[in-house]
Amino acid sequence: MRVRAITMSKKDDTYNLIVDQSLLLFNTKGIHQTSIQDIMNSTSLPKGAIYRRFENKHEIALVAYEKAGGIIWTFMQNAIKDKATATEKIIAISEIYLDAVHNPPIEGGCPMLNTAIESDSTFPELKQVMSTAFEGMSQFVIGIISEGKDSGEFSKELDPSSLASYILSSMEGAIMTSRLTLNNEHIYSNIKYMKILLLGFTNK
Amino acid sequence: MRVRAITMSKKDDTYNLIVDQSLLLFNTKGIHQTSIQDIMNSTSLPKGAIYRRFENKHEIALVAYEKAGGIIWTFMQNAIKDKATATEKIIAISEIYLDAVHNPPIEGGCPMLNTAIESDSTFPELKQVMSTAFEGMSQFVIGIISEGKDSGEFSKELDPSSLASYILSSMEGAIMTSRLTLNNEHIYSNIKYMKILLLGFTNK
Repeated sequence: MRVRAITMSKKDDTYNLIVDQSLLLFNTKGIHQTSIQDIMNSTSLPKGAIYRRFENKHEIALVAYEKAGGIIWTFMQNAIKDKATATEKIIAISEIYLDAVHNPPIEGGCPMLNTAIESDSTFPELKQVMSTAFEGMSQFVIGIISEGKDSGEFSKELDPSSLASYILSSMEGAIMTSRLTLNNEHIYSNIKYMKILLLGFTNK
Repeated sequence: MRVRAITMSKKDDTYNLIVDQSLLLFNTKGIHQTSIQDIMNSTSLPKGAIYRRFENKHEIALVAYEKAGGIIWTFMQNAIKDKATATEKIIAISEIYLDAVHNPPIEGGCPMLNTAIESDSTFPELKQVMSTAFEGMSQFVIGIISEGKDSGEFSKELDPSSLASYILSSMEGAIMTSRLTLNNEHIYSNIKYMKILLLGFTNK
């Protein structure tokens, strides 16, 4: 590894431009199909401006996808902030990807889904970053479900951990099948049956 | 495109060896990260033996993933054959990926999930092949649900199309999150809540 001067990795506007443009390229074309030349073209920066700030493409990808996790996290926080009940909060989270095909929060689709596959056997550091992001989201949804139990909205028998796993998994799956078939109906199906399922756990 | 003699593309043992080994490489490393050299190494074949049978790597990928779709299709058919009720059949299909982390039907995980992401914007012919495979599986699950309605097992109000979409999406999502976190608990959550949901539609 090359040794870089500390000042060279400072997070200036150029650093942010590289991260943002790279995230767009990675999330639409894939990391492995994005070259440093693509990032140079997209940012209109010379190679040196990139290599003064990042060791290599993998380092850019780790920073870019950590940022992507933060963007989705913000979408989730904003989605629930005006919602009163746990059910409303869970549905609001599921609706973040209502137009998964044409207008996802980050162009190219869910960053977690995209990297989970692309990094499956070939980029363990990135897989670790996204796995940690997923665990964070799980804890967030577990918290919402637990609040719903404490308030008496949901049955005391409901297990927050497995339900959070199911909510997030089925949401990811619906994004994947909607983008595969270019049809958001799978997102609508996900929300429809999630509502039915939650209603079954709701105290009348 | 190069013109190939018809006899050169015949589907001999070498052709099948190339397809099988390539599928393994594509589904574990990704198509874009697999080179013709990798396929040569894996098959112990010279370059000419590959190029006499396939135009390029993309052609191998299309054939390999069409075969993958057939493999999953066979798993689904086998899973349901001894099952009496629609519920049992749907759960049996969900259980194909019970050990998604360590022992999926095809090494590397679900071929549909892997290609849906990898081909999203960069390999439209493959995306089309996998979208068609997904539609075939949807029709298969719709058929099972419709039989369940006809036999009186399920409520007449149940909509087979949206439920099939939900079943397959949530299954794909659970495979993805299990492989991301290296924990099959998401598969178990999927099966647990699918059973609860189906029970809600079952005539008592």
